[in-house]
Amino acid sequence: MPPLGGLDQKAGPQLVKTPASTTSPAYLSRRAQASGGQPINYLMHTALSRPELISLAAGFVDQGSLPVAEVDDAWRTLAAEQSLAHAALQYGTTAGYRPLRELLLEEQRTADGDPPAMRNLTPEQVVVTAGSNQLLYLLADMLCDAGDIVLCAAPTYYVFLGVLKNLGIRAVSAATDEQGLIPEALEERLEQLAKAGELGRVRCIYVVSYFDNPQGVTLPADRRAKIVELARKYSTEHKIYVLDDAAYRKLRYVGDDVPSFAAFDEDDTVITTQTFSKSFSPGVRVGWGVLPPELVQTFCDVKSNIDFGSPNLNQHLIYEAVRSGGWAKQTAALCDVYRTKRDAMLRACERYMAGLPGVSWRHPAGGLYVWLMLPEGVDAGADGPLFRAALDAGVLYVPGGFSYAGEGEPTANNTIRLSYGVQSPARIDEGIRHLATAVAAVAR
Amino acid sequence: MPPLGGLDQKAGPQLVKTPASTTSPAYLSRRAQASGGQPINYLMHTALSRPELISLAAGFVDQGSLPVAEVDDAWRTLAAEQSLAHAALQYGTTAGYRPLRELLLEEQRTADGDPPAMRNLTPEQVVVTAGSNQLLYLLADMLCDAGDIVLCAAPTYYVFLGVLKNLGIRAVSAATDEQGLIPEALEERLEQLAKAGELGRVRCIYVVSYFDNPQGVTLPADRRAKIVELARKYSTEHKIYVLDDAAYRKLRYVGDDVPSFAAFDEDDTVITTQTFSKSFSPGVRVGWGVLPPELVQTFCDVKSNIDFGSPNLNQHLIYEAVRSGGWAKQTAALCDVYRTKRDAMLRACERYMAGLPGVSWRHPAGGLYVWLMLPEGVDAGADGPLFRAALDAGVLYVPGGFSYAGEGEPTANNTIRLSYGVQSPARIDEGIRHLATAVAAVAR
Repeated sequence: MPPLGGLDQKAGPQLVKTPASTTSPAYLSRRAQASGGQPINYLMHTALSRPELISLAAGFVDQGSLPVAEVDDAWRTLAAEQSLAHAALQYGTTAGYRPLRELLLEEQRTADGDPPAMRNLTPEQVVVTAGSNQLLYLLADMLCDAGDIVLCAAPTYYVFLGVLKNLGIRAVSAATDEQGLIPEALEERLEQLAKAGELGRVRCIYVVSYFDNPQGVTLPADRRAKIVELARKYSTEHKIYVLDDAAYRKLRYVGDDVPSFAAFDEDDTVITTQTFSKSFSPGVRVGWGVLPPELVQTFCDVKSNIDFGSPNLNQHLIYEAVRSGGWAKQTAALCDVYRTKRDAMLRACERYMAGLPGVSWRHPAGGLYVWLMLPEGVDAGADGPLFRAALDAGVLYVPGGFSYAGEGEPTANNTIRLSYGVQSPARIDEGIRHLATAVAAVAR
Repeated sequence: MPPLGGLDQKAGPQLVKTPASTTSPAYLSRRAQASGGQPINYLMHTALSRPELISLAAGFVDQGSLPVAEVDDAWRTLAAEQSLAHAALQYGTTAGYRPLRELLLEEQRTADGDPPAMRNLTPEQVVVTAGSNQLLYLLADMLCDAGDIVLCAAPTYYVFLGVLKNLGIRAVSAATDEQGLIPEALEERLEQLAKAGELGRVRCIYVVSYFDNPQGVTLPADRRAKIVELARKYSTEHKIYVLDDAAYRKLRYVGDDVPSFAAFDEDDTVITTQTFSKSFSPGVRVGWGVLPPELVQTFCDVKSNIDFGSPNLNQHLIYEAVRSGGWAKQTAALCDVYRTKRDAMLRACERYMAGLPGVSWRHPAGGLYVWLMLPEGVDAGADGPLFRAALDAGVLYVPGGFSYAGEGEPTANNTIRLSYGVQSPARIDEGIRHLATAVAAVAR
């Protein structure tokens, strides 16, 4: 078993050589020194080094339904037209392939019901990145100095929390319920910060707005409107943006879509980020964002320093897949696959956990995660007894504690994020059964 | 004509909306505020806004010889084997696709003649990035705090100089001749820094080692050995790395290959960066590096924050292209294309410039650039009379002054970087003819 207390250790590839003794030590920048310790690296290392585990941890996507035929169609369309193929294999621009940016804006506008608030958005405001993770990193880096504040839900996407921490940015959380971030709790937090004289350091309110990571909850329309309003109200010194991470929007298995935050935004308060990683293919790795106009040039400057624009080929492939309907087809197929898996996980939770006192879970209408809440006092953390017992039983999960910011709401260590993305329904059932045994043993 | 004094202005896409007057101003981080002003943005903007210009500026690659057939073969190989296709479309690891990393190390070792110094290198030390630009950025960011020093040639790759400047890193140059960086000049610079008590801030010596950007010169083997020795000798407080940017290595049109710096490195002093952008396709955008073992984990931590690993699909495509020989075939074809273009440019220089007093140029054995040296006192800068006269005559070039670091050797403003990558031989001839007219008029 790998060391469980290893979260602050380097958990990635082991180095096979030690630095030559004849030379001086390497110097690492302060930024580099602060770059490690992402829990996801530890989890991936554990999963890779113990392939026999049933991993309910990974945010990986279902392997069997990856869109081989759709990518094949997209590539053949490019290859059939030499000028298209040449354009795809040449350098592109930093902001991204213009026809794709137009298409994506149109798509979002249509999905949101063409609300008046979105009429003024232009393709110039759309930027394409290497997944939405890069977009989130770049935005954090360009909006925040070290010591600045990002407000978020408790809990929220733990990889982004890790990025913020590594950049020296303070994440401050507000309470949530089964509908996600509670506007009144957010306002209370903003009031506290105002009283402490720290409002001028708040740069944005980060929300995973659809089937969020990790709780699987979706913010209803009225909360979206209210959160935008709060951002405006408290933008006294500088603008406080709403950073709407809509990564899971297309993965809805029941119910109706909700307009994105942009639909409630009259004055360029909202930044939307989305990605094709979950709804199409993480290996193609294309994300995109819609930025307020005043941020576009600086965003491109920052991105230009880092990679000079995302791979042009991938943007052309995605363009063809969106244009031809391949993306929509793939998304529909994925929803069928994940609905079945979600049902398998919820059924297994019902079957194996319903009898466990104090154990409950959320019922997501989409996305990839089920959020499990255990009795108070049960420590589900990576150093705690349950994580160890689960590993012994052959199951890997993401400790819910990872998803809590360092400030604001207290960390609920009695929580677990389960993913049904990768495993088959049968393995999901088996994994939950083993996990239930471990929970029963530890909670006893 | 676009404003010529616009290098410090924002030269990218124009924003169509002004920030809403009802909200507070945006806050941009100090890092974001320092992110702009890359001359390349200005040049690309000029080229895009005046498509009638003969651009001898762009580092773009020849459009007609982009490897459509090779990418097609690579994709078909993946698509034919479902497990391969699925792997390519799934998430990968931050360091990169392991079989590709093995192949690339093997390739470099073979190209370098399997020297003893390289026997200990392992695939764990190979990392894959989104082009070598991302690798250079990440290395600068992880090795240097603001105020630290990178030593380089005068002149050197101006986009990297821009990245260093934006990160607050000092670039200090040493003199070059027709064989590139002069070791004695480098040692003198190191001595100066030592006397000034600044040696402890020197983090690396950056060299574009083959057909460099911008001079087109290649460092001979003895200079490589000597530069590695100097790095070791002056690594008194911290290790000073040699950062070997071998981007153009495969584009050799005459003469024999030279072993890379790694062949002269007994103790992990050398970092090698390479890219498929120039030798295969910039749209596929895969670069790679070989790092000293002590840097690998931190590098992956930093990259993991930024993008979680480069697109897996692209790495699989490149793997297939390298494995199948498609890359080698493409490189050979490219060398034929570029040799012809280089010859066209050198012939045109001879034809139109040989009679101009005080004008000379280097004769590159590979790469994409011809370095033009004008009489002392001729200002070829973007705000100078020649740049304006050249634009009026329909030609765009890169002012050589961009390629000089802020410290060390003085900036030679009477220089020009010409690229023969994009234009046809006929257009190259025409461009040089117009440029010669402009030079003659301004130098008169």
